[in-house]
Amino acid sequence: MSENAYTVALTVAYDGAPFAGFARQPGQLTVQGSVEQALAVVLRREIETVGAGRTDAGVHALGQVVSFSAEDGDTAGATLLRSLNALVDPGIVVREVRRARGGFSARFDATAREYRYRIATGAVPPLFLARLAWWVKRPLDVNAMRAAAEALIGEHDFRSFCVAESAEDKRTVRRIDAIEFSTEQQLGEECLVVRVVGNAFLHSMVRTIVGTLVEVGVGRRDPDWVARALAARERGAAGPTAPANGLMLWAVAYPDEVWL
Amino acid sequence: MSENAYTVALTVAYDGAPFAGFARQPGQLTVQGSVEQALAVVLRREIETVGAGRTDAGVHALGQVVSFSAEDGDTAGATLLRSLNALVDPGIVVREVRRARGGFSARFDATAREYRYRIATGAVPPLFLARLAWWVKRPLDVNAMRAAAEALIGEHDFRSFCVAESAEDKRTVRRIDAIEFSTEQQLGEECLVVRVVGNAFLHSMVRTIVGTLVEVGVGRRDPDWVARALAARERGAAGPTAPANGLMLWAVAYPDEVWL
Repeated sequence: MSENAYTVALTVAYDGAPFAGFARQPGQLTVQGSVEQALAVVLRREIETVGAGRTDAGVHALGQVVSFSAEDGDTAGATLLRSLNALVDPGIVVREVRRARGGFSARFDATAREYRYRIATGAVPPLFLARLAWWVKRPLDVNAMRAAAEALIGEHDFRSFCVAESAEDKRTVRRIDAIEFSTEQQLGEECLVVRVVGNAFLHSMVRTIVGTLVEVGVGRRDPDWVARALAARERGAAGPTAPANGLMLWAVAYPDEVWL
Repeated sequence: MSENAYTVALTVAYDGAPFAGFARQPGQLTVQGSVEQALAVVLRREIETVGAGRTDAGVHALGQVVSFSAEDGDTAGATLLRSLNALVDPGIVVREVRRARGGFSARFDATAREYRYRIATGAVPPLFLARLAWWVKRPLDVNAMRAAAEALIGEHDFRSFCVAESAEDKRTVRRIDAIEFSTEQQLGEECLVVRVVGNAFLHSMVRTIVGTLVEVGVGRRDPDWVARALAARERGAAGPTAPANGLMLWAVAYPDEVWL
């Protein structure tokens, strides 16, 4: 009987507001820390987890994936789901428990990550969406934003779109598959949703992309400027980092064959 | 120059959680109290408002309507909207400012009120909808609920569906125009929405209707039971009152001719 018969993948949602980010940090309330504490209680041993995306403080998730090596005899399935939801911080919900093959990593086996960024516009502040959207008071030219976003699709060096220190001595090439814009009614309030799909993202990359596209949307910059900002390969060339509370890690994709 | 040249109708949204209900109460945080305080600052006189619906503590609103008599020279329109939103409690948003004829009352001129009640079902608790939905862990038979709701459509004595004390010596006949069920995706989470439209509602009436229909939905009662509960004309005959946090005053309708 192998000690790593299979891997468990939890689909985890959280409201980012109360947390000092996803990643475990001693003495801080973090999503990973809270999930690992709950797992230790249910499974009666120390559990080290791996997350698909290390979201920053204040960033939300609907479909974060958190994996850990299971042992035969571990509590599993619906019982594990109920037990974890009774034990994790109230800002976290475990939505699904899946079994993956031994050695599966939520981080390294991910083939795509989808983030959604919500923006409320206009003179009326958002209410039910206030915790989940960036309020930009000026109207946005979505067509200009869409045109500007074209330059970012494909494989590029996104050094201009990540926290400067995090880019030092690091490979900063990433692939973006899609940047899409849609208007949604959520809880009676309208918001612009920017959907960004790619293989992986640098630190603050989605928020910098959104902050940069909003510069174009409000008319402070031309759509062409985004291509020049990308080519500059330095953080100062792009726009500001959009607030954390508008961002949500929506879903993470894996090859079908990882699931048992 | 008349002192009551016209009436102002504010469309007001609020998150019910922090408030001791809509209606002004000395020493309590209420929606009406907060709006009246903000109006007094902007208009530099005491303002007495009338609300379309006196929602209970914890009940939300997207389209509550609050009216007051304006004087010529009052701050109005977009300026009033911005000023009020800067001054009201953070749980309130003034969404719209409209001008109605003199003598207009948000309460007495209303021809229909629409409430929406959100229910999350299943083993996974709601997260982003937690503040706005009742979590019923058992699956609901929506067809049975729809069949049961038929008995409530039309003009009836709804004494069984209101707080017992509030019914004493009162006319308890109301007209319900529609009770509709739909499944919505909000912020990535699924919920059942019960839409209830009528001319006016008694105290706790929508919540008692929902609590009663859920008794049918979980299979504790047959659909026919609802017609008998209605006919009984006593509160004990109907089901429990559903929690306040799932309820939202969605919209209030007025005849077109009231607007200037």
